[in-house]
Amino acid sequence: MYGQNEDAFAIREIYDKALTEGDCYEWLHHLCKDIGPRLAGSPGAEAAVFSMKRLMDTLGFDTVYLQPCTVPRWDRGAPASGRIVNNAVVGTENLDVTALGNSVGTGPEGITAPIIEVFSLQEVEQLGRDGVAGKIVFFNRPMDPTQIQTFRAYGGAVDQRGSGHVIAAKFGARATLVRSMTTSLDDIPHTGAVAPSEDGFAIPALSVSTNGAEKLSRLLRQGEVRVHLQSNGRNLPPVQSFNVIGEVRGSEFPDEIVLVGGHLDSWDVGEGAHDDGAGIVHSLQVLPLWQKIGHKPKRTFRCVLFMNEENGLAGGRAYWAASNENKEFHLAALESDSGGFTPRGFSATGREDVFTDDYRKINEWLPLLEPYGLGFTSGGSGADISGLKSQGGLLIGFRPDSQRYFDFHHTKTDVFENVNKRELELGAASITSLLYLIDKYGLR
Amino acid sequence: MYGQNEDAFAIREIYDKALTEGDCYEWLHHLCKDIGPRLAGSPGAEAAVFSMKRLMDTLGFDTVYLQPCTVPRWDRGAPASGRIVNNAVVGTENLDVTALGNSVGTGPEGITAPIIEVFSLQEVEQLGRDGVAGKIVFFNRPMDPTQIQTFRAYGGAVDQRGSGHVIAAKFGARATLVRSMTTSLDDIPHTGAVAPSEDGFAIPALSVSTNGAEKLSRLLRQGEVRVHLQSNGRNLPPVQSFNVIGEVRGSEFPDEIVLVGGHLDSWDVGEGAHDDGAGIVHSLQVLPLWQKIGHKPKRTFRCVLFMNEENGLAGGRAYWAASNENKEFHLAALESDSGGFTPRGFSATGREDVFTDDYRKINEWLPLLEPYGLGFTSGGSGADISGLKSQGGLLIGFRPDSQRYFDFHHTKTDVFENVNKRELELGAASITSLLYLIDKYGLR
Repeated sequence: MYGQNEDAFAIREIYDKALTEGDCYEWLHHLCKDIGPRLAGSPGAEAAVFSMKRLMDTLGFDTVYLQPCTVPRWDRGAPASGRIVNNAVVGTENLDVTALGNSVGTGPEGITAPIIEVFSLQEVEQLGRDGVAGKIVFFNRPMDPTQIQTFRAYGGAVDQRGSGHVIAAKFGARATLVRSMTTSLDDIPHTGAVAPSEDGFAIPALSVSTNGAEKLSRLLRQGEVRVHLQSNGRNLPPVQSFNVIGEVRGSEFPDEIVLVGGHLDSWDVGEGAHDDGAGIVHSLQVLPLWQKIGHKPKRTFRCVLFMNEENGLAGGRAYWAASNENKEFHLAALESDSGGFTPRGFSATGREDVFTDDYRKINEWLPLLEPYGLGFTSGGSGADISGLKSQGGLLIGFRPDSQRYFDFHHTKTDVFENVNKRELELGAASITSLLYLIDKYGLR
Repeated sequence: MYGQNEDAFAIREIYDKALTEGDCYEWLHHLCKDIGPRLAGSPGAEAAVFSMKRLMDTLGFDTVYLQPCTVPRWDRGAPASGRIVNNAVVGTENLDVTALGNSVGTGPEGITAPIIEVFSLQEVEQLGRDGVAGKIVFFNRPMDPTQIQTFRAYGGAVDQRGSGHVIAAKFGARATLVRSMTTSLDDIPHTGAVAPSEDGFAIPALSVSTNGAEKLSRLLRQGEVRVHLQSNGRNLPPVQSFNVIGEVRGSEFPDEIVLVGGHLDSWDVGEGAHDDGAGIVHSLQVLPLWQKIGHKPKRTFRCVLFMNEENGLAGGRAYWAASNENKEFHLAALESDSGGFTPRGFSATGREDVFTDDYRKINEWLPLLEPYGLGFTSGGSGADISGLKSQGGLLIGFRPDSQRYFDFHHTKTDVFENVNKRELELGAASITSLLYLIDKYGLR
């Protein structure tokens, strides 16, 4: 039905070129080492926008442009500190903590209060004001280590980080301290966003390393634990930033858009290498690989580097708003935001009335992709493209191996050195191959 | 046909227990940090034999015993050194080299000679004595980076290391220098075995880092390159060592043996963490996981820690000889010797007359294993079990993701810190699950 031999050959060539002439590893080095952390609204994010624009100008797009969006501006300030104070068992001892993104600071004096350990938001509700007021609420439900897909374990625990401070504040807590989102036991606190406070009752929110969380839990079984926390987060006035977009107009079906993207912003504590430098360079690699094998897009190809995924999604929202207003149709949109590890495949989702057909088509291509270790599952794509669902196209998430992702996610260890060159290149080749098939054959 | 629900539940439990109560990561820490490198015949290998015997004594085997084997004893001596000498372009400059296992030393003065670059053994034949005599032969055919399975790329290049010195010696070369077996470009030389010289015309054999190899190749394009090499390898008299074997007699089919194993020896330059500490602790983990889910072996289960896989295979040979002499039948033998990375599945091979049936049975179990990311391919198992083929059972190789393996293989970076806890535990669970099915249902 398809030119299977021709396509098998083209895909083999995509992998060969990615593994021998790929640029993505060097681009990632530039993003991590020359630019560094890229929290929305920061100088790093601004540098990344203009540097990536300049790079895209050299890659053969018809047009490269900046799409404005207004992003929140959060500043961590000086590093947070935490310690167990005058404890009956251990005396005074440091804790490895970090301020959570969007959170307010404690003030220079910090906060000293007894902690109470809870394992869910509901538990805080049940404790109510009597149990919570004046305390530091310590959320300690671990990510479930038995989930084979670590993102599911993350999804099952991250409400504590995202919303814990809101409910704790409602009952008069002084601060929250959240167990880091990882199944590793180590000394590294993981940052990440808390939902911005909407009613003005914001309290400081910090995370503690998993080893620190285990220690607090042990000590609480033996008696009261008082903790001192000091953090310096500030929410500054929003500023303008940009998505960076490159486009090639389709030669046959210009009104069908095929999008690939990742997010250009990152947390401020590492280099955003896996999250989401990998997704950025995966996305940038697609067009050059198509060029190397002589494939010219039949459909309009768009590479979008989204801004502010981590703490606001302003870039995604701006993109969807413009796209919907212009009555665009994204036949397929693929986001890479799960790291630069060995590819395992893709997951896909879409509007119910067309999803099954799109997905069937993709499954027909499996024999071409299985030799490269790729499979398909339904469910989940990416935050930055989620708002395109109403257009009725297929939304796809790139799914690399997830076992090591939460060793690095939102920490100081998410650096270039922890990305493997071959694994990164294989990811770029996998994405390029799938989008080659979609561009060539369409979906329905 | 099978109790698929019951088995799905049992396998889920195996994974849960491996990920929450597994011991393999701690055992690997012990093997790497308390014992360290374990080249056959070395004090480390001896310590490993007795330490693993003591550990196995606690794991619930019916019998644990040592099986003697006579192993070669190679000693690296002081670290090798290499340098480019008086070169017209770069002057004198150090090279990152290491002596290859089993190789003889250069003597304390070392060897200084012009190098000639070749890309195959055949090329040495073609050059003959006129081209080769008095020279250092530099084997520089890279591992093919476009192979998705890196072991295939290794297989396509390793003849240069294994046999290059034999043919070079035949034509009067003074030494060989072999490009390291990795697709990475870095400064780390990889050791590994050369075939022992059988005719007394042994010449020194060293490897050079891939960056060093690239530099030599560039310089050779500009003119003569002379290199100085100094190495100190010595082949000492063989000594006695042991395989370590634990056995549980099967309750229903005691004459059908199900074997799991890895090799206890390692190279001397790292800690043998992936190669093959991972395989050792994978193998040790099987019986404890069966115990945790209440599975008692119907067939005779044997866990074998083989000695001397790296530079002689004496342990494997001793095991096959004894097994064949006793007319044993290994229904299935599985070796883990591809590292502690995320499991991708298994490969299997066997005697032609029964392989297809065995393999068909295994394929029926795929729906139970696919949720854990496991698949099957035919072809290849493991060196230590290869001699069991004549018994007619199925030989299986555990196949984790291979992308990072040759970053560490046979180098000083093959250390505990480069093994990920979850990836290691998932490997143990995968092997335990497959062997659970084989033990429960048999193969034919």
